[in-house]
Amino acid sequence: MADGPAQLAQMSAAQLRRLIRAGAHRGQTSGLADGFLQANVVILPEEFALDFMRFCQRNPRPCPLVGVSDTGDPMMRTLGEDIDIRTDLPAYNIYRDGRLADSVTDIRALWNDRMVAFALGCSFTFERALRAAGIALWHTDHGTTVPMFRTALPTVPAGPFRGPMVVSMRAIDAARVDDAIAITRRFPHAHGAPVHAGDPAAIGISDITRPDWGDPAPVGAGQIPVFWACGVTPQVALEAARLPLCITHRPGHMLITDIPEDAETPVRVPPDS
Amino acid sequence: MADGPAQLAQMSAAQLRRLIRAGAHRGQTSGLADGFLQANVVILPEEFALDFMRFCQRNPRPCPLVGVSDTGDPMMRTLGEDIDIRTDLPAYNIYRDGRLADSVTDIRALWNDRMVAFALGCSFTFERALRAAGIALWHTDHGTTVPMFRTALPTVPAGPFRGPMVVSMRAIDAARVDDAIAITRRFPHAHGAPVHAGDPAAIGISDITRPDWGDPAPVGAGQIPVFWACGVTPQVALEAARLPLCITHRPGHMLITDIPEDAETPVRVPPDS
Repeated sequence: MADGPAQLAQMSAAQLRRLIRAGAHRGQTSGLADGFLQANVVILPEEFALDFMRFCQRNPRPCPLVGVSDTGDPMMRTLGEDIDIRTDLPAYNIYRDGRLADSVTDIRALWNDRMVAFALGCSFTFERALRAAGIALWHTDHGTTVPMFRTALPTVPAGPFRGPMVVSMRAIDAARVDDAIAITRRFPHAHGAPVHAGDPAAIGISDITRPDWGDPAPVGAGQIPVFWACGVTPQVALEAARLPLCITHRPGHMLITDIPEDAETPVRVPPDS
Repeated sequence: MADGPAQLAQMSAAQLRRLIRAGAHRGQTSGLADGFLQANVVILPEEFALDFMRFCQRNPRPCPLVGVSDTGDPMMRTLGEDIDIRTDLPAYNIYRDGRLADSVTDIRALWNDRMVAFALGCSFTFERALRAAGIALWHTDHGTTVPMFRTALPTVPAGPFRGPMVVSMRAIDAARVDDAIAITRRFPHAHGAPVHAGDPAAIGISDITRPDWGDPAPVGAGQIPVFWACGVTPQVALEAARLPLCITHRPGHMLITDIPEDAETPVRVPPDS
């Protein structure tokens, strides 16, 4: 029996993960487990793990690393209780040689004792904080996907991981831009403050009406386009690296953690430490 | 010709590193390059690098990772211009099998193409901010080393790296404790907010007058002992891991970076990115 949206919204992070693990929720995770950090997920073989971790350290705005598994251990012990990264996401994308090869709801058959899983903070956290402050977001009000753009801003490469920074754009009333900057700065584990506000051309975006990913969204009269570093950045770096195998969350289908989104450090000390 | 303290204090980070590289400054770095991040350094073979990086990610208060080299590349490209980790610290400690074996001023003979260098933020940054706010620090006023204590607080282990959290103690006037917490929270790359304020026994310290490292410092009438996570924590974890070879900075002899200490992300984008 499927649970309705209202029931889902009442559930704890642990309850939601159990539901997802049982195959009873395959949908997106936006709006669920209010107040808890959700995360992008990247899973790859250990031989690439050190370089990928360096890529995250060098590019903390687009790649805010919040957790990493032991090699071969599917449990994300520092992000919550009983999180099995093989089963606890609603959907996964499988990449082979840098290209999307499949989309599945369980990766137990692909996991092995050389795999390492990474969790990276996502924009759900700061979007909730913006809305709570009365800052409207066009894409959520209209049920579309936020517009995302390839920029001329470089990332700092690490091993095979490199590429442009990708940003998401939200049009903010001019009078609220300073608030939006201050609010999102409080969430360094969720992309933090914007990387740019104002003229799109200044960061290499030639046409604000034609995003590279997501749906177009208007910049209204009296609004400023504000750009945040985006979790598609590591996705592009992963495609460039052409790893034989790499697994990610399916966009919008995030890992729900037990970490409060305003935690100063996104680490739960496991009981057996 | 040796430069005096007044001359040193006027120099830029780059000038100081050149002086150190030339062998003309072998002393401590406290008080130098005002406003720029200084860092603890750990250098170890690549086979241990992923686990050490996980240890830092899982224990960000004692181990605030601010930079990591490519394997075999001695240049710390994201921390400044022309930083050669083999020559640009005033002094290094060499550990073999977890025990201090030597102290040297240059590690070119020990570096090889499998080495990885890590830089971790240090307390100089937040101490300067506390003093700037008029909060007196007994150990700096008296020219002693801050008292440090092994605690009952666990770290989250990663591979061979494990052990207790080590903290430094500063006695703060009760009326300024909230200020001290707020000020140091602004520097997550330099240990951030305290891990405890008040009763030492609550974190497993039985005798506040007998530190495990450093010099004793009094807790005066009307003062509260305040405890910050300390860079000796990774040192203890490294000793526990008993690596065949590990190189660190000599205590007090830090890496001086080009990163402003209030930078939101401690990353300089190298010009060739």
